[in-house]
Amino acid sequence: MIGDYSERLIVQEVSPRDGLQIEPRWVETADKIALIDRLSLAGFSRIEAGSFVSPKAIPALRDGEAVFQGLTRQPGVIYVALVPNLKGAQRAIAAGADELNLVMSASQTHNRANMRMSCEQSLQAFRDVVTVAGETRLSLNGSVATAFGCPFEGAISEDRVCALVDHYLELGMTGISLADTTGMANPRQVGRLVRRVLERLPAAQLTLHFHNTRGLGLCNVLAAYEAGARRFDASLGGLGGCPFAPGASGNICSEDLVNLCDEVGIDTGIDLSLLLELSRTLPALLGHDLPGQVVKAGRNCDLHPAPNFDA
Amino acid sequence: MIGDYSERLIVQEVSPRDGLQIEPRWVETADKIALIDRLSLAGFSRIEAGSFVSPKAIPALRDGEAVFQGLTRQPGVIYVALVPNLKGAQRAIAAGADELNLVMSASQTHNRANMRMSCEQSLQAFRDVVTVAGETRLSLNGSVATAFGCPFEGAISEDRVCALVDHYLELGMTGISLADTTGMANPRQVGRLVRRVLERLPAAQLTLHFHNTRGLGLCNVLAAYEAGARRFDASLGGLGGCPFAPGASGNICSEDLVNLCDEVGIDTGIDLSLLLELSRTLPALLGHDLPGQVVKAGRNCDLHPAPNFDA
Repeated sequence: MIGDYSERLIVQEVSPRDGLQIEPRWVETADKIALIDRLSLAGFSRIEAGSFVSPKAIPALRDGEAVFQGLTRQPGVIYVALVPNLKGAQRAIAAGADELNLVMSASQTHNRANMRMSCEQSLQAFRDVVTVAGETRLSLNGSVATAFGCPFEGAISEDRVCALVDHYLELGMTGISLADTTGMANPRQVGRLVRRVLERLPAAQLTLHFHNTRGLGLCNVLAAYEAGARRFDASLGGLGGCPFAPGASGNICSEDLVNLCDEVGIDTGIDLSLLLELSRTLPALLGHDLPGQVVKAGRNCDLHPAPNFDA
Repeated sequence: MIGDYSERLIVQEVSPRDGLQIEPRWVETADKIALIDRLSLAGFSRIEAGSFVSPKAIPALRDGEAVFQGLTRQPGVIYVALVPNLKGAQRAIAAGADELNLVMSASQTHNRANMRMSCEQSLQAFRDVVTVAGETRLSLNGSVATAFGCPFEGAISEDRVCALVDHYLELGMTGISLADTTGMANPRQVGRLVRRVLERLPAAQLTLHFHNTRGLGLCNVLAAYEAGARRFDASLGGLGGCPFAPGASGNICSEDLVNLCDEVGIDTGIDLSLLLELSRTLPALLGHDLPGQVVKAGRNCDLHPAPNFDA
C-alpha cells in the first residue's frame, strides 16, 4: 500500500568512500575532491567523503587527509569519515571531518573477517573513540553491518540488532546505520526491523544502507520509508561492488534512487540532472561500466523523437 | 506498508517470446523447445512460448509452428502465443496455442511505430481475431503497451488506458495485460492504475508486465501486488532488452522476482533452484551476459565458508 510521501528523503552519498574503496584503479586526490565538490553542488546534505583506515588495508583511500583538507565546504553539508579505531578517529578529527562513522558487524564471524576482532573488542574500541570525540564538536554514527543477514552465518536475529543499537546509543552515539552489507534484506523484514529500531531513536538519527545485490535495493528503500525511515545511503552510479558475488551489484545507485523519489513525488533536494551528468563521468575515471540504470535509460522526461512514418 | 502476502503470485514466463525476439544470435528450434520444457518443469503455469508475426519483422521467432508442435505439454500449463493479426491467429491456432495475446499501444505514436497502424486499425483487426478464436477453445488476452508512459509522447492518461481495457473486455477478451513497455512506471502510479483496472475485471484476469529499465521493476511488482494484482510477466535472466536504451535492462528477471517472493513469503509454485540452473545456461546459448542478479549473487541461503582466522 502506498502511503504518505510528503516528508523529505535524505540521501547520504557514499561513493567517495564505500564506492571507491575497492576500485583497483587509483583515483587521484584532485579527482576525488572534484567528485565530492560536485556532489555537494548537486544537493547532497551528507557525503561520506573518505575513511581513515590503515593504508595497507585500503590503499585506494590512503589520501584521506588531503581529500578532507582540499574539499570546498558547502554550507549545511556534513562531511563524514569512516574510522575503524582511535587512531583513525584522531586522523579524521585532525583532517576536519564533521562526523565519524564507526562500523561493526552484528555477525561475529563477519566482524572477525572484516575487522579482525570480536564484536566485544569492537565495542571496547568504540569507547575510546567516543571519549576523544566527546571533546570535539563532532557527531558520531554507529553502523551495524550485516544487520539483515550474514553471508557466513545466515540469518541475524532482530533482537541482536536491537541490542547493538541500544549499546551504540548508551555509548553516546547520536546516529545509527543499519547496513544490509551483502544485499540479503527483503522489504517485509526491513519494515519490521525499521519499526522496532524507530522505537529507540527518532527517524532523523537513523540511516538505512542497502545493497542491490539481489535486485531488491529500491524495494527495501520504499519499505523502510513507509515504515518511517528518512535517511538512506546510496552511491553515484551504484559504485561499490559486492566482494562475494563477482558481477553482482553492491550499493544502491544514487541517481536511480533520486529518480524513484522524483517519480513518486518524494522530495530529496537533489538535482537529478546534475547527478546524471556527474555519473556519466565515472566510466572514464574508473575504466569500467557501472550498474546504474537511469544514466543508461535516461529520465522519463527525456522523450525520443517519433519515427518518420512516411519513410 | 507491507500488506497481506498470503495469495499466490503467478509468474508468466515470457523469455521464449519477449526475451528471444530481439536476440541477434539464432537459437535453434530444439534449444527453444528445451528451454520451454525446462521452464514448465520448474513450475511456471503460463509460458509465452512464441509469436506468429511476419518472419521478416521478427526472424528470431520464425519457427513458431515447430516450437509449439515440438514442446512437451505439462498438465495445467498454458502455452501462450503472441499474434499481431488474423493471419498470425490462424497460424497460432493451427500450431496448438492455448491462448492468444494481442498487443496494441495506448500511445498512437508508439502503435504506429511498433505496429504500423493507428490504434483504431489495431482494434478493428482484433475484431477479426476474436471472431476466429470464438470458434475454438482458446482464450484471448489483450495487452495495452505503453500503459504507464510512452517514450515518444510521454505521460499516458489513466482514462485512456481504462477506456482501452473496457474496449478489450467488450470485444470479448478475458485477459488483460498492462505493459510498462519502456520502464517508465513508478510504484505510486502502478498502485493507482491497478486499483482502477481491478474495478473492471477480477485479479485472475489481469497481468502486469513491467520492465526494469530504470531499476523499478520489482518495486512496481510489489506495489501492484499490494493493490490486488496477482499475475506478472517476467523473463528468465531478465532476457529482453530495451530498444531505446542500449545497456539498460528490459523485462524484469524471473528468478529475481521468484527470489523476492520466496524471501517475503509469497507463494509462486516455482522452484527457484531449477530456475537458477536454467538461467545459468543462457550466456552460453546467447553469447552474452544477462542482467539477472540472483544468478550472480546466489540465494541468501547459499552461505559462504567463513575465512580461516588463524591463517
